[in-house]
Amino acid sequence: MHISPQRLILILLSTLVLCSATFANDKLLDLLLHKGIVNEEEYNKLKLESEKKFELSYDKGVNMVARNGKFNFKVGGRLMFDAAFYDTDKIELGDGTEIRRSRISVSGTISDDWEFEADYDFANNAVNVKDISISYNGFNAVNIKLGNFKEPFSLEENTSSRYLTFMERALPNVFAPGRNIGIGVNSKLKSWTWAAGVFGQSVGDEPDDDEGYGASVRLTTAPMDDDRRVLHLGIGASYRAPDDKDREVRFRERPESHKSNKRLVNTGTIANVDDYTTIGLEAALILGAFSLQGEYIKTRVDREKNFTDVDFSGGYVYGSWFITGESRNYKSKSGKFGRIKPLVNAGDHGGVGAWELAIRYSTLNLNDNVINGGIEENTTIGLNWYLNPQLRFMTNFVYVNSEKGGVHEDPRIFQLRAQIDF
Amino acid sequence: MHISPQRLILILLSTLVLCSATFANDKLLDLLLHKGIVNEEEYNKLKLESEKKFELSYDKGVNMVARNGKFNFKVGGRLMFDAAFYDTDKIELGDGTEIRRSRISVSGTISDDWEFEADYDFANNAVNVKDISISYNGFNAVNIKLGNFKEPFSLEENTSSRYLTFMERALPNVFAPGRNIGIGVNSKLKSWTWAAGVFGQSVGDEPDDDEGYGASVRLTTAPMDDDRRVLHLGIGASYRAPDDKDREVRFRERPESHKSNKRLVNTGTIANVDDYTTIGLEAALILGAFSLQGEYIKTRVDREKNFTDVDFSGGYVYGSWFITGESRNYKSKSGKFGRIKPLVNAGDHGGVGAWELAIRYSTLNLNDNVINGGIEENTTIGLNWYLNPQLRFMTNFVYVNSEKGGVHEDPRIFQLRAQIDF
Amino acid sequence: MHISPQRLILILLSTLVLCSATFANDKLLDLLLHKGIVNEEEYNKLKLESEKKFELSYDKGVNMVARNGKFNFKVGGRLMFDAAFYDTDKIELGDGTEIRRSRISVSGTISDDWEFEADYDFANNAVNVKDISISYNGFNAVNIKLGNFKEPFSLEENTSSRYLTFMERALPNVFAPGRNIGIGVNSKLKSWTWAAGVFGQSVGDEPDDDEGYGASVRLTTAPMDDDRRVLHLGIGASYRAPDDKDREVRFRERPESHKSNKRLVNTGTIANVDDYTTIGLEAALILGAFSLQGEYIKTRVDREKNFTDVDFSGGYVYGSWFITGESRNYKSKSGKFGRIKPLVNAGDHGGVGAWELAIRYSTLNLNDNVINGGIEENTTIGLNWYLNPQLRFMTNFVYVNSEKGGVHEDPRIFQLRAQIDF
Repeated sequence: MHISPQRLILILLSTLVLCSATFANDKLLDLLLHKGIVNEEEYNKLKLESEKKFELSYDKGVNMVARNGKFNFKVGGRLMFDAAFYDTDKIELGDGTEIRRSRISVSGTISDDWEFEADYDFANNAVNVKDISISYNGFNAVNIKLGNFKEPFSLEENTSSRYLTFMERALPNVFAPGRNIGIGVNSKLKSWTWAAGVFGQSVGDEPDDDEGYGASVRLTTAPMDDDRRVLHLGIGASYRAPDDKDREVRFRERPESHKSNKRLVNTGTIANVDDYTTIGLEAALILGAFSLQGEYIKTRVDREKNFTDVDFSGGYVYGSWFITGESRNYKSKSGKFGRIKPLVNAGDHGGVGAWELAIRYSTLNLNDNVINGGIEENTTIGLNWYLNPQLRFMTNFVYVNSEKGGVHEDPRIFQLRAQIDF
Repeated sequence: MHISPQRLILILLSTLVLCSATFANDKLLDLLLHKGIVNEEEYNKLKLESEKKFELSYDKGVNMVARNGKFNFKVGGRLMFDAAFYDTDKIELGDGTEIRRSRISVSGTISDDWEFEADYDFANNAVNVKDISISYNGFNAVNIKLGNFKEPFSLEENTSSRYLTFMERALPNVFAPGRNIGIGVNSKLKSWTWAAGVFGQSVGDEPDDDEGYGASVRLTTAPMDDDRRVLHLGIGASYRAPDDKDREVRFRERPESHKSNKRLVNTGTIANVDDYTTIGLEAALILGAFSLQGEYIKTRVDREKNFTDVDFSGGYVYGSWFITGESRNYKSKSGKFGRIKPLVNAGDHGGVGAWELAIRYSTLNLNDNVINGGIEENTTIGLNWYLNPQLRFMTNFVYVNSEKGGVHEDPRIFQLRAQIDF
Repeated sequence: MHISPQRLILILLSTLVLCSATFANDKLLDLLLHKGIVNEEEYNKLKLESEKKFELSYDKGVNMVARNGKFNFKVGGRLMFDAAFYDTDKIELGDGTEIRRSRISVSGTISDDWEFEADYDFANNAVNVKDISISYNGFNAVNIKLGNFKEPFSLEENTSSRYLTFMERALPNVFAPGRNIGIGVNSKLKSWTWAAGVFGQSVGDEPDDDEGYGASVRLTTAPMDDDRRVLHLGIGASYRAPDDKDREVRFRERPESHKSNKRLVNTGTIANVDDYTTIGLEAALILGAFSLQGEYIKTRVDREKNFTDVDFSGGYVYGSWFITGESRNYKSKSGKFGRIKPLVNAGDHGGVGAWELAIRYSTLNLNDNVINGGIEENTTIGLNWYLNPQLRFMTNFVYVNSEKGGVHEDPRIFQLRAQIDF
């Protein structure tokens, strides 16, 4: 049989394409085996060769990932630069600039089922240990995580700072337990999520006292969960017993602006605390480019005999509209919000990226009984510009109304952010 | 001559394999040249092309390494999470959790013979500079290293924290000089090692005083050095003159548990010190799944005229047994221990990973003459579970017996660790 | 038509080369399309496949870069180890060693036109945020940068510490504003550069005071700008208003040696400051292996009514000679100096790398009117050995002459550095 040069070129070309594809994608090997072009022995040899190598690629268009059969490795980070201007009342709040977040993270998978993550913030010439954890994902029903990570409580707390609609989380976030060292379990369902964990204290506590401990649980459901139409409902509860020696707790919160260190509401140290229990309700609705989100959180501080128990609470509600038609990205497996991708990136085909207009009302009441922590109500108008999935600019106007011990402090805040993550 | 389609497919297939292999391994090019399939010119062209690229791969199944002809680059790290519970006596030790180590490292080779390493710990919301160094490996007989690294002294000190049999090094580790800024030389022999170095002080010392300085030397031999049968013998000596101004030294040690900051034995500050000299003896024996290891360390503090010299000493001995049949990994080129690889990883073919049972006795005497630093004897039982080469869980029971100034403090400690490195 | 085995082998071989090349370089694909070997459809498929992958390579022989069509990602760093010996006069300066710089950086490009950089120093067990920024490079005429970076002022300040001729910048560097958080614009011209920016304060300032602010501008030209013959001329101006509350400024400078923390000249805190304005003149001349460089900087501190304004100034001039024939690397797009590459690396073909001999005279006058900060004149002799583009050893002798308040302090300093960057 003769082979024409044309045919040879064709075959060589396919070989070339195969070569390229082999490196681009292991799946081709499976195909070749399936088609009988590669025999079992050759397949195994090639597979082994391929598994020793890492393949470097985008992860969802964002992170650099080195990946091979069993192991992957990702280096990422986020940078946020803020400027804040305070039209203050009586208290000086301190106009200026700040690096709000400056993080480097390394994460990956080893041996298929085990993941690690190490995320550090260096924003203010200081180290702040963020998510540092080991996870096991080999069970069908649940993932298990161990390390320093966020307790499962609150929709806004569990949504990454990269994906928040406003520059800062709302006032009632003061009650969310945040990151502590512990062990947690979370579901692998769809449209339903549950997560629970037990935790010691956060990194950097006093090493010679018996640690306090806590437990949190969160349950969410998305009865409506289409691409651009979502209804999310959730409930959470968190319990914490403080450090055995100090038996104290303090709630205080910035006015939804981070540059200034001042808090307009602050319970001060509450002593003789047995424990405190926090419950939260969450709801969110996405209808195409429009969305609503709200939470209500209440905490009860149980104190020792002869000391009065105290209750504090807060809530927020906000609406957001993507002028350019995008829809907020709900992740129904984890019951939180994810990355916004503009329909057309700024600069591509004359695109302007995504533009989002949002308004939020939030309230916090830290007065109860003998504790006069104050009351604050904020109204925020926000405008976000997403140039592409990694880059956004934000601006927030916050109208603050606070009262503490009869003194009213009502600053107006204008703040800007530039944010990139990689 | 005719070429059958079968033969063509075969040839194309080999081309495909060659393509894969070219990227997986430069050595193939050498082979092709050797076989005359590639001529000198083509070889050089391909080699050049290949050298411009990095090849990304496992390093001994663990680290991600980018490597090309002259340069390689590795990003790695280690995470260790501890929980400790103290059945205390009189002194409160502080139950709880901690991130024991949380490190990121970048290392690599430039221009064949020069290596760098930069390893940072961020465990406790603080930076701790670990191995930061430049090495020259171009000589046949020795490597030279410059930077911040461990002085060559003590088998356990020079074994990485990733590979220790117990969660913490034994009590006499208090005498090991640890990391300082200096310059060192080490041998490239097999079954014999020697290393020596001169050092200033550690990172972060008082910048305006004349620094103290030290020198260490270590010599080891492995008269028996087979795969699963090893006899290691070693001797080390270390000299140090303290900071010219303070002329002080202090020896104090945690009870082989790190969560609590308290030390049950502590010489306090010893003033008027001229210098101190430390000697150490090491031995280890591996017989298949069984191993024994021990060290004895003694330090003499020479003080100024009219002040009494003092001697302190300590030692430990331990046995370890791999229930699952593995053998401890002795590295005869550097005279220390390395990574444990389970015979069968947990999860592979129903494997359970490696299980290791170990028992240690350690002792430390910080009493001499006018100095009453105390005496401590610990017995530790440890159980380690290595799921795969990167991941292990450890548990230690420590039975502490200490006496300082007539006061006995005998806590019982139960501690757990989860460890991953990448 | 028959195909001879020889011809087949040849064709297969070219395929092999093509395969290699495909991965090494996207440009080949363009060539194949151009030659008609690959059709439009196949080209696009291959291109897409290739764009999803990162290609890992050297960046100018130095950094590891992962690069694909739209995104690149670089991990780098620098290490500098110093030892310093002070032949002191009256004040103790503190002989010893130090990690002078120990940096890790992550930088890259997203979506073609946007760059990020995050560079951290961990030298002294502390975090020091260096260049942390987002840049837009999509305009034809200018780049825009936002974040924490160096204000455009002074040739020596804007030259990276990796490429300085001497171990430390000259005395008048005390007047350079350095890194602050702000926004800047710089030109994309050749042989002409201009850059300007407005800035708040540096990272880690007092968060509750209204920040001070500043603005800087720099203009340079290179009327002669050949490969080994360059004339650089520049002028810069910088304005700064201090923090609204403190209204203070202080100028103090180490004696061109960093190990010791002591400053021989120091204005102390100057209070009641309205603002201060600094101007600088720059010149540099390269004639093959020889070069000259100098700057003169003067600052005027404007103070409130009834307080006297004060003027301080300084300057330096230095000459450098590459004994081995290299020429300093002038970057005419940014008006600063870059990396030295030895003509022959040490070790290659018996090469000795590059050897540079340099001498510098610098002066600083911090006396004016009521302020007696002192006067200092230093003469430095430096010898640098560049083994290859990433690695160099430096040694400096500094002859210090200082006078402050009638007291003369004239230490002699001998210092060494080992430096690697990657």
